[in-house]
Amino acid sequence: MKTYSALAHPNIAFIKYWGNRDQALRLPVNGSISMNLGALETRTSVTLPESAPADHLVINDDEQSGASLARVSAFLDIVRQLSGQKAYAEVISRNNFPSSAGVASSAAAFAALALAASRAFGLALSEKDLSRLARRGSGSACRSIPAGFCEWLSGAGDEDSYAQSFAAPDHWELWDCVAIVEAAPKSTGSTEGHALASTSPLQAARVADAPRRLQLCREAVLARDFEKLADVIEQDSNMMHAVMQTSTPPLMYWSPASLLLMSEVTALRRRGLAAAYTLDAGPNVHVICTAGSHEAVKRHLEGLPGVSWVLVSPVGGCARLLGAN
Amino acid sequence: MKTYSALAHPNIAFIKYWGNRDQALRLPVNGSISMNLGALETRTSVTLPESAPADHLVINDDEQSGASLARVSAFLDIVRQLSGQKAYAEVISRNNFPSSAGVASSAAAFAALALAASRAFGLALSEKDLSRLARRGSGSACRSIPAGFCEWLSGAGDEDSYAQSFAAPDHWELWDCVAIVEAAPKSTGSTEGHALASTSPLQAARVADAPRRLQLCREAVLARDFEKLADVIEQDSNMMHAVMQTSTPPLMYWSPASLLLMSEVTALRRRGLAAAYTLDAGPNVHVICTAGSHEAVKRHLEGLPGVSWVLVSPVGGCARLLGAN
Repeated sequence: MKTYSALAHPNIAFIKYWGNRDQALRLPVNGSISMNLGALETRTSVTLPESAPADHLVINDDEQSGASLARVSAFLDIVRQLSGQKAYAEVISRNNFPSSAGVASSAAAFAALALAASRAFGLALSEKDLSRLARRGSGSACRSIPAGFCEWLSGAGDEDSYAQSFAAPDHWELWDCVAIVEAAPKSTGSTEGHALASTSPLQAARVADAPRRLQLCREAVLARDFEKLADVIEQDSNMMHAVMQTSTPPLMYWSPASLLLMSEVTALRRRGLAAAYTLDAGPNVHVICTAGSHEAVKRHLEGLPGVSWVLVSPVGGCARLLGAN
Repeated sequence: MKTYSALAHPNIAFIKYWGNRDQALRLPVNGSISMNLGALETRTSVTLPESAPADHLVINDDEQSGASLARVSAFLDIVRQLSGQKAYAEVISRNNFPSSAGVASSAAAFAALALAASRAFGLALSEKDLSRLARRGSGSACRSIPAGFCEWLSGAGDEDSYAQSFAAPDHWELWDCVAIVEAAPKSTGSTEGHALASTSPLQAARVADAPRRLQLCREAVLARDFEKLADVIEQDSNMMHAVMQTSTPPLMYWSPASLLLMSEVTALRRRGLAAAYTLDAGPNVHVICTAGSHEAVKRHLEGLPGVSWVLVSPVGGCARLLGAN
């Protein structure tokens, strides 16, 4: 009875994923681009104990049940089906960042689980197939399988909807300074949020325009053109929040502190500091910086009202196996 | 030498005007709906002094020159052309609300000016033609000509792009509690903003969806259905700001205080108070209320951080002549 352990990083999307064309398969309505966050990681181990009566899940030392366990079991069912094995699994997972960080942990969690579980069940999947598998657990998890700067190709179906790296971690030394804001309002989870995307009268236009933004973002990363990157990621973030804010019911993830930070970041950039904001389905503000700007940006953000603390991360590598013993 | 005086109210749009298909004629890309604000008014008098060497403009006792005078002179040129008279005019205008109120004053200003100037130049225009004329000075001014709840029909061209009332002021006792927020950031004026609307990838979708929102708003006002009105005006406001925030360059009119107020207003409504927000091209939050809720809403808004003061207005009547002497 072997235990397989794997590590994966969360990622921050530059071009956002919002809305599925197939909710069950998590096939997105548009492609997306992200950067892995190397300082943050989830480590997950999977064992298949003999004659275990059910799947067993522990996250950060807390025994899980209910929706959390059900979601992992449903994911393990896919692995069981792929491998032809029926064993139940013991899954132990730990993040090196507090859940109060408000950084979406499901991407790293399902990327690490896809790798550890596929090995425990005897599968040796290609990076592409691992990415496809991780996608089934949480859409953005597919982007936490390859290294560095990744693009999730929306694809025609399950077979070709996966992420691939288009620039290695050392291609460009970018940093993410995540400003964690106080008193985050209770928000709608992103799985439920994705289902509302199509109710916004603006979603179709956001999706139709995605190829333009993807191309600009790809070009900006490849050319290390920060101004170009800043313009497209801020516009893309605003476009996703525009869809959220105009869906039925509307989803307002921005808090007053988020808005203050957004305006501070654009002001910093006008003063010559390389900084650009992007926000996921929550009020924290991810400030993308260059190697030359991230320390000054971090200090500035820490001094702003409403900011609890600032978490800093460079670009991260791919999901990887830590051991089998 | 007679002096003609007229009065007009500003209006608050329920379904917003943002973007022109003809910038010079101020022909809008979509129809809009508004409510006149009876407590606020602009009074304007126009005289044609014999052999005056140029147009002369005084606003709130301040002699005007530069862009402000040029805009009024260009408007008077249209009146001169319509009347076949070449005289220069003396225009004296006064608002009963401070400019620090951040309430767009150009709608009331050009509605009052259209009425007073057309009379001074010997024209007796129908309400429709007055509305068309006011539109040439400031698009939304066309909605300050008729009474109560008005719809600006986008029309096929200059001839049929005007506003008409679809419900009288006493049809429904609504109130606008305008929360004036502190430290309004310097913002792009709406004339310049309109020109940027088409740079947003979301503007075409906002415009294409406008007939649906116009119909919902019309139905809600006619049926005095506050919940329905609240849903559509908040969505429409968010859609206009979505376009602003995703244009190139982006226009962020919301301040942190605006966002706090928006979330407070939706929370008040969930607690049973009739209140719905809408924001124009600035950070102040217009809170539309019923007769039964506006006093409680006003008190609540006054207690919120970031609110300087709250201006209150019931529904207003049409633009009207005050005298000729």
